[in-house]
Amino acid sequence: MEELALFRKFQAISSCGLSGDKDPAASLGALVKTNPGNFFEDFRLGQTIRHAVPRTVTAGDVALYIGLTGSRFALPSSDSFAQSLGLDRAPIDDLLVFHIIFGRTVADISLNAVANLGYAGCKFGAPVFPGDTLSASSTVIGLKENSNRETGTVYVRSTGVNQRGETVLDYIRWVMVRKHDKSSPAPEATVPDLPSAVEPADFVILAGLDLKHYDTALAGAPHLWDDFQPGERIDHVDGMTLEESDHMTATRLYQNNAKVHFNQFTESKGRFGRRLIYGGHIISLARALSVNGLANAFRIAAIHGGRHVNPSFAGDTIHAWTEVISRDPVSGRSDLGALRLRTVATKDQPCTDFPNVAADGKYPASVVLDLDYSVLMPRRR
Amino acid sequence: MEELALFRKFQAISSCGLSGDKDPAASLGALVKTNPGNFFEDFRLGQTIRHAVPRTVTAGDVALYIGLTGSRFALPSSDSFAQSLGLDRAPIDDLLVFHIIFGRTVADISLNAVANLGYAGCKFGAPVFPGDTLSASSTVIGLKENSNRETGTVYVRSTGVNQRGETVLDYIRWVMVRKHDKSSPAPEATVPDLPSAVEPADFVILAGLDLKHYDTALAGAPHLWDDFQPGERIDHVDGMTLEESDHMTATRLYQNNAKVHFNQFTESKGRFGRRLIYGGHIISLARALSVNGLANAFRIAAIHGGRHVNPSFAGDTIHAWTEVISRDPVSGRSDLGALRLRTVATKDQPCTDFPNVAADGKYPASVVLDLDYSVLMPRRR
Amino acid sequence: MEELALFRKFQAISSCGLSGDKDPAASLGALVKTNPGNFFEDFRLGQTIRHAVPRTVTAGDVALYIGLTGSRFALPSSDSFAQSLGLDRAPIDDLLVFHIIFGRTVADISLNAVANLGYAGCKFGAPVFPGDTLSASSTVIGLKENSNRETGTVYVRSTGVNQRGETVLDYIRWVMVRKHDKSSPAPEATVPDLPSAVEPADFVILAGLDLKHYDTALAGAPHLWDDFQPGERIDHVDGMTLEESDHMTATRLYQNNAKVHFNQFTESKGRFGRRLIYGGHIISLARALSVNGLANAFRIAAIHGGRHVNPSFAGDTIHAWTEVISRDPVSGRSDLGALRLRTVATKDQPCTDFPNVAADGKYPASVVLDLDYSVLMPRRR
Repeated sequence: MEELALFRKFQAISSCGLSGDKDPAASLGALVKTNPGNFFEDFRLGQTIRHAVPRTVTAGDVALYIGLTGSRFALPSSDSFAQSLGLDRAPIDDLLVFHIIFGRTVADISLNAVANLGYAGCKFGAPVFPGDTLSASSTVIGLKENSNRETGTVYVRSTGVNQRGETVLDYIRWVMVRKHDKSSPAPEATVPDLPSAVEPADFVILAGLDLKHYDTALAGAPHLWDDFQPGERIDHVDGMTLEESDHMTATRLYQNNAKVHFNQFTESKGRFGRRLIYGGHIISLARALSVNGLANAFRIAAIHGGRHVNPSFAGDTIHAWTEVISRDPVSGRSDLGALRLRTVATKDQPCTDFPNVAADGKYPASVVLDLDYSVLMPRRR
Repeated sequence: MEELALFRKFQAISSCGLSGDKDPAASLGALVKTNPGNFFEDFRLGQTIRHAVPRTVTAGDVALYIGLTGSRFALPSSDSFAQSLGLDRAPIDDLLVFHIIFGRTVADISLNAVANLGYAGCKFGAPVFPGDTLSASSTVIGLKENSNRETGTVYVRSTGVNQRGETVLDYIRWVMVRKHDKSSPAPEATVPDLPSAVEPADFVILAGLDLKHYDTALAGAPHLWDDFQPGERIDHVDGMTLEESDHMTATRLYQNNAKVHFNQFTESKGRFGRRLIYGGHIISLARALSVNGLANAFRIAAIHGGRHVNPSFAGDTIHAWTEVISRDPVSGRSDLGALRLRTVATKDQPCTDFPNVAADGKYPASVVLDLDYSVLMPRRR
Repeated sequence: MEELALFRKFQAISSCGLSGDKDPAASLGALVKTNPGNFFEDFRLGQTIRHAVPRTVTAGDVALYIGLTGSRFALPSSDSFAQSLGLDRAPIDDLLVFHIIFGRTVADISLNAVANLGYAGCKFGAPVFPGDTLSASSTVIGLKENSNRETGTVYVRSTGVNQRGETVLDYIRWVMVRKHDKSSPAPEATVPDLPSAVEPADFVILAGLDLKHYDTALAGAPHLWDDFQPGERIDHVDGMTLEESDHMTATRLYQNNAKVHFNQFTESKGRFGRRLIYGGHIISLARALSVNGLANAFRIAAIHGGRHVNPSFAGDTIHAWTEVISRDPVSGRSDLGALRLRTVATKDQPCTDFPNVAADGKYPASVVLDLDYSVLMPRRR
């Protein structure tokens, strides 16, 4: 069914022609065969899109992820640490899973996006191990044309599964997408209920996880769940400077083909004059920096929401700080708990003073990310 | 025998001495132990050179290749996609195999090359899987001294094999190589017959390949072999900007040690003032860009010829377009066919207008690559 | 016990407060949870520190190491070459092992280091294979406060082990570390005996190694142990230009979190105005360049000492040359011997003239590394 839809789209666009084009065979090929991305009017409520390119995640991806982000969390770094917790081997970093699933969706969902508006209800599921193959699909759960009739908001629930069909990631995302033809009729406006948070009861705990032998010295810090207080703020101290090669390699690794990250020729004429860095790379850097203070946050259970407040570019140095929002027990587990965190990342400003959103909801120009998420952490026995 | 030849070469060079050198022991070491590369007069017709450093290709190489090129073809990305086609797992990207074999040959064939003149008859053989070890050898099939007596053309057939001795790649290459001593006698001129194309009958189809369950939605495009017409042109739309770090990492990964790619100190005084990008990296980028329009071209069967028309440098943005030359049935297979393609890559010029060779055979300065090759693609059932 | 010590340190620092800080909860969090590194007075003679983050080394790390350094030694590149020498598969490059172990130690030993003063007695042990997990610990073997009372020298023996507890690396390192509080009492000065060299009798030969089928053509050079003469000098000819992305990716891969390598915002205001390149990356480049002349030096047995004579920065081009110090038999082995080498690396100066330390012990500004080490090489039969 999706394939038919794709055909229809390709046909529709090829048949609209290009004024002034003299060579029908060439324009036919040029337009029919390449993917123009979906425009607002191509989405239908309830439609499910199976995204292209299932991706086998390997030890090569793990090494590149460490090399590009500097992540030092013990669990995804170490088979022996994972085995000490009852797992067979080290699972893939949660955010690497996120980026690979997200990367699948770009060609169908956001190639014609004007803006990524938000995320909600992002839940990490079954752990992913090297050798697993990840696929993604998205269901359209909301559509709302904007009053200018030139764009509309598309709400999708995207789901990543492994080769056994187990869900590894599940999230809602909404993007503002251009219309191809302003005169296309608007669908009935449907805005889904967006969860303000993933409930702790819905967190997926890695099967077989046993924290009896969790070794804080090997993880890198003595502070456990019990030691964090709501309202507490942690400056993660370290900074990481962005390079074009690094963010492009990371984004290519995820097979995310959004054009703005890669094409300096076009972007030099664009809004910023420069390649824009994939916001997910900033999330990864913020998480990697947060190991200095949150080394025992061994797993991201959920991302409740997140905003890329300002764009980042090569040459910027990213710092981050975290506020503890709440300390949430996880039902049925006395050995671990969840911390709901807000991690703020900045560019070219250290976080000793905790640069923050103002009372009027405005952010300083130095703030690039405001991420609301929950991590799992061992509890004191 | 090759080893004796190597010794002879090293001896010959060490004994020639360096005028003005005051320290014989030092110059002895400096000249005897390092590889000066082969000069024109070092090659003998019929000579076979076993190249150094067999290379085990791994999931690490696969990840880096995706990270450095952004390739999004489904088959080398996905074990499960490969398994749906009857293979055990995802084979290594054809061009990664090419680069690794080519990389082996550089130290012996082209270290003293003035120019890479051409390729012909490049045929991809047995699929390569992670864990396979690739070795290469080259046989000298032609020699022709130039009239200036300072250089000559060396024709070699290079062959890559896996650890079981199965051929994975086979190609003819000719390079212009400097003579070490202008007065060395010229060998009898021998110019081999160069095939203008690899015949479809000689294409190697992956053993066990069965396209019954080929899923176009997972590959990323609905267009199959039947949908392409000779003369059709496809603008691949996307662009990729080159960075020094990216092309050097790719070329180092292939253990290609041609000096011009790596040494800014020397190159700053050279012809271009900059490090020259390995032409193979441009081929990889063009192929990666071509997924937008040719997503079902799951395998490169052959490279018939190719020209690096202009050099590329860091900062250039590569675009590409493709012309369908012919649609060739593959004997014994009703489920797949071959497309002979011509892919042209440009720097800092989008391909909406299909920048092309002129009637007089001259290329615009923006064109960097003109590649003639055949891919395999599923046929409609 | 180490964990208690860590707690004590974190408490001590949190309780010292920050003048002018108005928000006790925030400063509590900021100071208590992040790792301030150990200061001179935090170290105790005889103390053993288990370092954080055991690291599983994989084929991904191998590929990145080749991609970032251009190493072309046959043994770590090739399972089939390794198997021809009686090993199960290709071992991990010796220096990659070194960097990963060294990377573990940084957060505890040298985060507050003013200078890395030296290395001694670095011995490579059991080979490391993809899939092995490496952990590190360090024992304080010497402490000496400087007369200014602001810094002191800390001597540690650091040991890397695999998941079976076998030692893979063992070395002494001494660093000048800042005191947190100048008035802290000085420990009794203890300076350990530093070995001037690892004895050949202590070299660890890879278990099962059999050089009967060692193929010099595949390794890339005909010169064996017998062919090298003490006093001989080898210019390794090739050069490699440093890029920010490359050295940062390498250093992040080793999870070495020394701040000076990554944070341009801070370093732009610092001593050099630029990010400093991890000295170990220069060692890796020098070793990789040395394949041109030392291709049969299949294993580093020991590093006797090394000095980073001048800092290196992105844009510098590294060259290297080697002097043969001695040719040492290895007891019980007629098939291999050791070469003690001194490899000197330069920046922006080719090594045709062997840039060297002067009679007064001073180095030219172009010299960045002077490394004293021993390699193993096959002997003629």
